[in-house]
Amino acid sequence: MNDRIKEILSWYDNENPGTIKNLYSILMHGKLAGTGRLVILPVDQGFEHGPARSFAPNPDGYDPVYHVKLAIDAGLNAHAAPLGSIQIIAKEYAGQIPLILKLNNNDVLSNNPDPIPAVTASVEDALRLGCAAVGFTIYPGSINFKKMYEEIREIALEAKRNGLAVVIWSYPRGSSLSKEGETAVDVVAYAVQIAAQLGAHLIKVKPPSEHIELEEARKVYEKYRIPVNTLAERVRHVVQSGFDGKRIIIFSGGPAKGREEVIKEIKQIKEGGGFGSIIGRNSFQRPRDEALDFLNEVLNIYMEH
Amino acid sequence: MNDRIKEILSWYDNENPGTIKNLYSILMHGKLAGTGRLVILPVDQGFEHGPARSFAPNPDGYDPVYHVKLAIDAGLNAHAAPLGSIQIIAKEYAGQIPLILKLNNNDVLSNNPDPIPAVTASVEDALRLGCAAVGFTIYPGSINFKKMYEEIREIALEAKRNGLAVVIWSYPRGSSLSKEGETAVDVVAYAVQIAAQLGAHLIKVKPPSEHIELEEARKVYEKYRIPVNTLAERVRHVVQSGFDGKRIIIFSGGPAKGREEVIKEIKQIKEGGGFGSIIGRNSFQRPRDEALDFLNEVLNIYMEH
Amino acid sequence: MNDRIKEILSWYDNENPGTIKNLYSILMHGKLAGTGRLVILPVDQGFEHGPARSFAPNPDGYDPVYHVKLAIDAGLNAHAAPLGSIQIIAKEYAGQIPLILKLNNNDVLSNNPDPIPAVTASVEDALRLGCAAVGFTIYPGSINFKKMYEEIREIALEAKRNGLAVVIWSYPRGSSLSKEGETAVDVVAYAVQIAAQLGAHLIKVKPPSEHIELEEARKVYEKYRIPVNTLAERVRHVVQSGFDGKRIIIFSGGPAKGREEVIKEIKQIKEGGGFGSIIGRNSFQRPRDEALDFLNEVLNIYMEH
Amino acid sequence: MNDRIKEILSWYDNENPGTIKNLYSILMHGKLAGTGRLVILPVDQGFEHGPARSFAPNPDGYDPVYHVKLAIDAGLNAHAAPLGSIQIIAKEYAGQIPLILKLNNNDVLSNNPDPIPAVTASVEDALRLGCAAVGFTIYPGSINFKKMYEEIREIALEAKRNGLAVVIWSYPRGSSLSKEGETAVDVVAYAVQIAAQLGAHLIKVKPPSEHIELEEARKVYEKYRIPVNTLAERVRHVVQSGFDGKRIIIFSGGPAKGREEVIKEIKQIKEGGGFGSIIGRNSFQRPRDEALDFLNEVLNIYMEH
Amino acid sequence: MNDRIKEILSWYDNENPGTIKNLYSILMHGKLAGTGRLVILPVDQGFEHGPARSFAPNPDGYDPVYHVKLAIDAGLNAHAAPLGSIQIIAKEYAGQIPLILKLNNNDVLSNNPDPIPAVTASVEDALRLGCAAVGFTIYPGSINFKKMYEEIREIALEAKRNGLAVVIWSYPRGSSLSKEGETAVDVVAYAVQIAAQLGAHLIKVKPPSEHIELEEARKVYEKYRIPVNTLAERVRHVVQSGFDGKRIIIFSGGPAKGREEVIKEIKQIKEGGGFGSIIGRNSFQRPRDEALDFLNEVLNIYMEH
Repeated sequence: MNDRIKEILSWYDNENPGTIKNLYSILMHGKLAGTGRLVILPVDQGFEHGPARSFAPNPDGYDPVYHVKLAIDAGLNAHAAPLGSIQIIAKEYAGQIPLILKLNNNDVLSNNPDPIPAVTASVEDALRLGCAAVGFTIYPGSINFKKMYEEIREIALEAKRNGLAVVIWSYPRGSSLSKEGETAVDVVAYAVQIAAQLGAHLIKVKPPSEHIELEEARKVYEKYRIPVNTLAERVRHVVQSGFDGKRIIIFSGGPAKGREEVIKEIKQIKEGGGFGSIIGRNSFQRPRDEALDFLNEVLNIYMEH
Repeated sequence: MNDRIKEILSWYDNENPGTIKNLYSILMHGKLAGTGRLVILPVDQGFEHGPARSFAPNPDGYDPVYHVKLAIDAGLNAHAAPLGSIQIIAKEYAGQIPLILKLNNNDVLSNNPDPIPAVTASVEDALRLGCAAVGFTIYPGSINFKKMYEEIREIALEAKRNGLAVVIWSYPRGSSLSKEGETAVDVVAYAVQIAAQLGAHLIKVKPPSEHIELEEARKVYEKYRIPVNTLAERVRHVVQSGFDGKRIIIFSGGPAKGREEVIKEIKQIKEGGGFGSIIGRNSFQRPRDEALDFLNEVLNIYMEH
Repeated sequence: MNDRIKEILSWYDNENPGTIKNLYSILMHGKLAGTGRLVILPVDQGFEHGPARSFAPNPDGYDPVYHVKLAIDAGLNAHAAPLGSIQIIAKEYAGQIPLILKLNNNDVLSNNPDPIPAVTASVEDALRLGCAAVGFTIYPGSINFKKMYEEIREIALEAKRNGLAVVIWSYPRGSSLSKEGETAVDVVAYAVQIAAQLGAHLIKVKPPSEHIELEEARKVYEKYRIPVNTLAERVRHVVQSGFDGKRIIIFSGGPAKGREEVIKEIKQIKEGGGFGSIIGRNSFQRPRDEALDFLNEVLNIYMEH
Repeated sequence: MNDRIKEILSWYDNENPGTIKNLYSILMHGKLAGTGRLVILPVDQGFEHGPARSFAPNPDGYDPVYHVKLAIDAGLNAHAAPLGSIQIIAKEYAGQIPLILKLNNNDVLSNNPDPIPAVTASVEDALRLGCAAVGFTIYPGSINFKKMYEEIREIALEAKRNGLAVVIWSYPRGSSLSKEGETAVDVVAYAVQIAAQLGAHLIKVKPPSEHIELEEARKVYEKYRIPVNTLAERVRHVVQSGFDGKRIIIFSGGPAKGREEVIKEIKQIKEGGGFGSIIGRNSFQRPRDEALDFLNEVLNIYMEH
Repeated sequence: MNDRIKEILSWYDNENPGTIKNLYSILMHGKLAGTGRLVILPVDQGFEHGPARSFAPNPDGYDPVYHVKLAIDAGLNAHAAPLGSIQIIAKEYAGQIPLILKLNNNDVLSNNPDPIPAVTASVEDALRLGCAAVGFTIYPGSINFKKMYEEIREIALEAKRNGLAVVIWSYPRGSSLSKEGETAVDVVAYAVQIAAQLGAHLIKVKPPSEHIELEEARKVYEKYRIPVNTLAERVRHVVQSGFDGKRIIIFSGGPAKGREEVIKEIKQIKEGGGFGSIIGRNSFQRPRDEALDFLNEVLNIYMEH
């Protein structure tokens, strides 16, 4: 094990060997193995946005097998998906790539300004299906935060007891936040802190914007002149908010957009000390060859020293 | 075991042998045994709509024994009913046809635009009564989706742990959907995706209409010119939304109507790649001889290559 | 065992021997033993309406011992009461008459148009007190139906696992039903169906009136000319709605009224194929001698062939 | 054991020997030992009303030790208090007086017209602390009655399973009762009936007033001319409502008032057949010597034949 | 063990030896070891207020390791923090200072006038991480008090069963309290009483102000002339409200302010018989050297006789 991996794993030395083994398996898989950087392919959009919106641009994606093969062939670190998808692939691809079972999901059929997803799978499912980790979304800012934080408390405890790793998607949203506030730098930094305090090993957030949402926070950002002008600076601040860099923070790609734009964003994430990316629609909505080429470019960015 | 059955069962190879055995028993029962197609007789209308509305047209149907005999004599694949009915028939007809215990039910005595059925029986009931599967209704679009999805999560996990198969009735309904939207093709496809992600082995939906409900979805259907003009096309799209055809999707008959109309619909379902039908009122509200003749015609459609 | 008792018990042949034994004990107790008819004395009015309203007309009734002796001396099939009352009598009268522990209760101190009683005792209480059955009230039509149906699901499963019988009081009530609708023939028939599907062995309803409440139901009653003019006809329809007569349906007496009126009603219930009566206030609010004489007359009606 | 104690215990002969032993210990402790009468010192006012309002009149009362010593030295039957207080005294005074752990509590910091106290301690606490009984407050008339009745159902079952006695404080209150109605004779009698049906061994109510609250009840009180003019008559009616005198009913003293007034009230309670008193503020808010003298007078009243 | 420590531990002699051991370890750690006084460093502000507002003034504080070292080096009695932070430090600093795992947390992203924090960690977490105690915040005055009091009831019981100590942060807040009322002397005294009755071993409150919030309480404070003019007097009254001084009451520092002001406040707390301080922002938002110097001054105050 190289020093960087040793250092990262040392932050989790309170955990059972089983959990360390699974974190290790994620950090040591694919082209970024041993770099301490990660790229993950998440595919829960069929549930979250509906099948046609997710897969019509590249209909191969209707089949869960397509995604796990894409993740393996691209040399990514892990693949995350909800229960049904993981059930399809778990046996055939057992051992070929670390799997993250997404334990809760929302859909867009009923709207709730204060979202509270359904818990759609269990730690027991993750264990029987051979997953390396469980994934869970929290919406800090939702008036339903208590329910979600307590769900992940129980799930995380059970997962750790059984040697799994815990990934939290921390997406601020709720009736007391503005739309702009959901990606405000102060709010994203706060979302990282909360996920870290809830015991996540790996935290996924959206790239933070320059906006500052909370009045009390603004005073502090101004008084202490926290640099937040460039995305790289904001990423640095967000990573610092995860126990001064002692938590693995990765950034989502967001809605599909121009390749150059994504690449530019990822370079900034890298520069700011982000640990990697979790790229869904920007990967699987492109044709397979294009996706492989695109992901290769992303991986190369993260491989540079 | 023929190749088609092997192929279908291969989609579920993550499951315990007990569950595979029960799926096999359903696929290998009745006239459609080995074809990979299914016709199921469901009788929960006594609970859902009231006894007279369900059984007065053919009063033999007040007796649960009538239905199981009809299903056996017609050569159907399985019979589904709520707890009380299954209790009446479970011992006498043990082993003669796979039984699906319907675990939740709604009634029409109190109205709720966002329905949330009562869970009226347990996996333990299904096991002690010798059932092959449990059945469960979800209403995607209801603001109560979290509750329902979490009920089926626990039920499905317990069912699979104990070697049962899981059937989900996925019926979009709720205050943020229009009446037309409940059978809109985008919404039915979405309902299939959700049921599949929740871990269903077998999914029942209503035949989808041409209507598209969700604005964001409409853009995609138009942009990618997803063909939804004929019922066969819509069925094909809906089946694709179930993991690219790797989930067994069957279609309900809806309210009793003219025989020709039903037959026409079933031919389209067959043409579109639907796995079969679940036909309640159109079967048991006709006199027995007529019902047997009608069901035979349906089975013959599904037997054609 | 005579043929009628054999026939009745055959409807429950899915149950454990313990449950069959307890159903048998109820069917074989008192003057109606072996007839397949039942008369039960229920005394939960102290809880449901208050002590003075229930017992001031005949103050001996303040003492729970009075009621169990009345039921024994009158030769009834069983006695039903809440926890406190059963605790007083369980040891002294152990074995002398089958006891039904009423597991939930409402009071009139706080009003709720959609009632949801408190579960005030447990299956474990019924077992430790030597009861033959548990009793439970549901209010179909209440917006709280889900809660109640799920309570009885768990209670019934636990009761059956432990060899007890299950009695459901099925009383339609709720904000979407009219006052008249609570005893409408379509609604009472529906209430029987629901209780039967929930797994009840014995179902208690109110005598149905000629009124039809639900618009969709009315069409069916008219189209199929279901006879509901006399109480006997309505009772016949209600019994049919309980799995074509394969569930034991008994009828309550309602508020205390003239003896002749009650007797007339019971003759109609008998004529319509009702399995018996459950008579509270009309029994215990009369002086003991008068009550014994009255109950004897009732029993004699049910003993006639 | 004398005949009166034998008689009282015979009402509870359904219980485990452990519960009988604890009831016996309460009935046989202090100056009233063997009389079948009880006086209990309850001190939960620190929680219910705040510390200064409770203890400033006699600051020794800030210390839980003061109260248990007062109860012992006065020769009372038992001492009731919340968890924190009992924890302070349980070991040092173990065995010197029966302790009743009050399992739920309300405070006056947030108002709720339909009160629903917090369950602040467990049966396990009562067992580990060596208590003879658990105490629980219900508020019949609160729209939250279902929650409370179900809490005490579970607590009472667990307590009885483990050989403890069960004391219910039954205090009618709620948005559908008038202030006057909380102590109305019909409502207090009803509160006794409910507590008795919930399985209480010992029931505490407030002295009933002449007021009749419920319209339906008033008709009965008038028709049957139930005597409720004097407090003694009302106490007699209330005791009758507890299974015709087969439950131990004791009466609270209410807010601190003139000694003569309290003594007069207690004489009426005695005359009406009340089993005793539970006297908090009227005891501990007086200086110790005065309190001992006052309690001695009370005990002497109950010792008279 | 000296007499003062013996005396303090004697108040908890109902507890398991494991809990006594952990209380002892807190009382015997750091510079105040054996004095019966405590100073604790709590760091949950990252969760409660956000990371930048908490740590930007002294960015070393982003790292949880900084805080535990500060607490150790300053010679404090214990360090309290949420799950994520404790996980980072638990193994490396195992045994070097007693740790208090904060089991519930609020954030400022969604506002609730009647706060109800999320339970974010478990007793099992505290045990596996080697903590000496669990910490829990209650908000007396919140309409959600029942939920919180019941959470701590279960947590405290489990903690004591497993030999941990229990610390309650008791912070009055809720829609029926004024802003000023949250620190009113009557309300803070009440908050101490409630926490003590809930079974806390150690109670943290804010320094009380002269304001009296509750009308009924004001009458008593005036009638009995309870002295509340100086902070020392108010602290004395608050400590008395914790079982006449038999519970360990410590006081928070509140928002960062001038050093002199804090020192003056602490002298008053000491004079009034407070057991110590829990000082977060006033410690960790100063540079480390300044913080060590400041904490040393605080400890010296408490060391004076």
